[in-house]
Amino acid sequence: MDLLGDPVRKLPDRVWRLPRQEDDETAGDGIGRILALSDGVFAIALTLLILDIVLPVKTNDDNLEQALLHIWPRYFAYVLSFLVIARFWVIHHQTFRLIIRDNATLVWLNFLLLLFIAFLPFPTAVLGAHEGVPAAAVLYAVAVCLTGASSAAYLWYATGRANLMQPDVRRGQIRAMRARSMSGPVFFALTVPVAAFAPYVAEALWIFVFPLARMSFV
Amino acid sequence: MDLLGDPVRKLPDRVWRLPRQEDDETAGDGIGRILALSDGVFAIALTLLILDIVLPVKTNDDNLEQALLHIWPRYFAYVLSFLVIARFWVIHHQTFRLIIRDNATLVWLNFLLLLFIAFLPFPTAVLGAHEGVPAAAVLYAVAVCLTGASSAAYLWYATGRANLMQPDVRRGQIRAMRARSMSGPVFFALTVPVAAFAPYVAEALWIFVFPLARMSFV
Amino acid sequence: MDLLGDPVRKLPDRVWRLPRQEDDETAGDGIGRILALSDGVFAIALTLLILDIVLPVKTNDDNLEQALLHIWPRYFAYVLSFLVIARFWVIHHQTFRLIIRDNATLVWLNFLLLLFIAFLPFPTAVLGAHEGVPAAAVLYAVAVCLTGASSAAYLWYATGRANLMQPDVRRGQIRAMRARSMSGPVFFALTVPVAAFAPYVAEALWIFVFPLARMSFV
Amino acid sequence: MDLLGDPVRKLPDRVWRLPRQEDDETAGDGIGRILALSDGVFAIALTLLILDIVLPVKTNDDNLEQALLHIWPRYFAYVLSFLVIARFWVIHHQTFRLIIRDNATLVWLNFLLLLFIAFLPFPTAVLGAHEGVPAAAVLYAVAVCLTGASSAAYLWYATGRANLMQPDVRRGQIRAMRARSMSGPVFFALTVPVAAFAPYVAEALWIFVFPLARMSFV
Repeated sequence: MDLLGDPVRKLPDRVWRLPRQEDDETAGDGIGRILALSDGVFAIALTLLILDIVLPVKTNDDNLEQALLHIWPRYFAYVLSFLVIARFWVIHHQTFRLIIRDNATLVWLNFLLLLFIAFLPFPTAVLGAHEGVPAAAVLYAVAVCLTGASSAAYLWYATGRANLMQPDVRRGQIRAMRARSMSGPVFFALTVPVAAFAPYVAEALWIFVFPLARMSFV
Repeated sequence: MDLLGDPVRKLPDRVWRLPRQEDDETAGDGIGRILALSDGVFAIALTLLILDIVLPVKTNDDNLEQALLHIWPRYFAYVLSFLVIARFWVIHHQTFRLIIRDNATLVWLNFLLLLFIAFLPFPTAVLGAHEGVPAAAVLYAVAVCLTGASSAAYLWYATGRANLMQPDVRRGQIRAMRARSMSGPVFFALTVPVAAFAPYVAEALWIFVFPLARMSFV
Repeated sequence: MDLLGDPVRKLPDRVWRLPRQEDDETAGDGIGRILALSDGVFAIALTLLILDIVLPVKTNDDNLEQALLHIWPRYFAYVLSFLVIARFWVIHHQTFRLIIRDNATLVWLNFLLLLFIAFLPFPTAVLGAHEGVPAAAVLYAVAVCLTGASSAAYLWYATGRANLMQPDVRRGQIRAMRARSMSGPVFFALTVPVAAFAPYVAEALWIFVFPLARMSFV
Repeated sequence: MDLLGDPVRKLPDRVWRLPRQEDDETAGDGIGRILALSDGVFAIALTLLILDIVLPVKTNDDNLEQALLHIWPRYFAYVLSFLVIARFWVIHHQTFRLIIRDNATLVWLNFLLLLFIAFLPFPTAVLGAHEGVPAAAVLYAVAVCLTGASSAAYLWYATGRANLMQPDVRRGQIRAMRARSMSGPVFFALTVPVAAFAPYVAEALWIFVFPLARMSFV
């Protein structure tokens, strides 16, 4: 374990050492609750996206049909963010299949990811309510880019010095996982200037690159 | 496993192969998190339906009783959608009892179902706020029909070439499951034209056919 | 198993029989997902109660303190409903510890309970916004009474002819559980007329009887 | 077990004794559902915080950028409360790793904690909407202080007479855990007067002491 990277263990080492050693054998328990909490946050973030789809307050029975069609940017934002969050869950799922130990740093890096995942419904709401506005598109690109960076962060930590992975994961496999974990944040970072000057182009890039991306990285 | 149907495995085969082979033996783990996420989305979709039951803003202490009775279409839509989502959960529950392997295509087909499940609170809100309006009833019928179609999609995939089922599930059983999985989407597709011309008849069909349907299919 | 009480099994018996028989041995799996979904709905219903605590729209920095104190009925309703839902969870937890088999009727009786649990945030919101109004208090009493009745319903079913309990649960224990399961709905039914004529008395009864009730029944 | 501290067991002892004795061996089951419910409430509380980040109703496409920057207190409150709730989850996670038995008092003390955890989105919303207002800062400090006190309460109970811990947890370790569990509530109690007279100083204390606190206690 990485003693330097885990400040919790520094001072009260005397206190937690006993149960921690035992946990090494029942590590699944500790990781189990991390996954339960993470799955909860992912599931709720996915489902709260629907709260961003609302009809204008002036909608009545007569103009309902027009109102339902008029809010198409909200449907678009819903589908886009659903796919984005689902993608991050798939990466989380595949990475944690290979992780067999946890420590405080991993827990807090995971919370950093969850902080951004739970944040995504807000940029989604802004994008759905202000389609084609540069500020909305830039906010969205930055938010997903930061989420991707924090997703890469826990992966790099777990596969690095901390050595929390299964022993039979090969070096080449780890190198490939690390490289691919950068593709998401880099792609969204590159679309930030596009979003600032041509918001619709950025939105098209996000939704059309997605199926291709599914093939070339995780 | 179905190599053609699983694009994720195409390019980075070298990278993920090792853990995937091991996963075959601990497949329950992988499916366990898929079920945890799915149960989360189902539970939240069920519970968010209550947010669609709201009193008009002009409600005060004096007209509270009338206001509570006046929003009966919202109670109706709540109960209807609760039963609809519960039904999809029961099908999910019974199908995944028989599935022992997962792959990327199954994960994404399951996300397609969850995308529609998480969407249902919106048509429910529209139906509750605009009872008897064709656009609201058509939206509801189309949304449930698409949900049913995506529910059938993962079932057909899992029982087809991908062969993700328990080995002792018989051929006749699979044929019956496949046939019954079509009954939900076909029924709601048939009510789309009814909803367009006689919304109240469609609503009555949905709520009255439900107990009968419970007997004739899953 | 109770064939009459389980309509799902009637027609497609041929189809589901094989896996169901196997499930008897791995019944924990089936019940596990029922509990996961139920815990999700309970947790979300508990947490959504906070959305009922809102400040009036005309609140500004100057009158914030008064506004925070003025909404005390909303804090009261929050605490009351949190305790009520927590109580139903404890009963659910204790009952399902003794249940080792499930069938379709139990699943749907459990959904009936969840339908009412998920509904409780609405009467809570009405009670918090219209304190001292008979209609709000009656709605609340009726809603909790129906929740309690559906909680008793699955308990009576599981301990009755369906025989889903552990074999070593004694007859006297089942009689006592059944009797106690009626105390909640009967108590709230008795407060309905009180709520109609003296709403504050009913609210006092609910909150003060609670700690005593904890001693005399589950 | 602590008979006096567990009122549920008083009267109906005859009824519950049999299954409870058996539960001692499968205690993980009982604790498992407590953790599942708790993780659900923690996950939802974390994710509902995003609902507190909303743009003013008068926001349009032209002033969107200014509006997004202008609501910085809401981002601040979001991050602060996310870290606070995450901290309570980490303490919960570490404490329950050492608990191997449950009883009714532990369940209700845990519900007391969850009642305050689920409440935190409200003070967060008030803090985000009324930054620099003493009433908002005092409400926040009091709410977190009470949450910390209830977090300490279940820890003191479980490590005290009730004796619900693993037998190999040492006396010194328990003393250290008890001492550290007081640091959170005491710190937030001390910031109540600061919040009343210098709200911004209190907010700075909360966010800056956090990383240091991570080193000196759990």
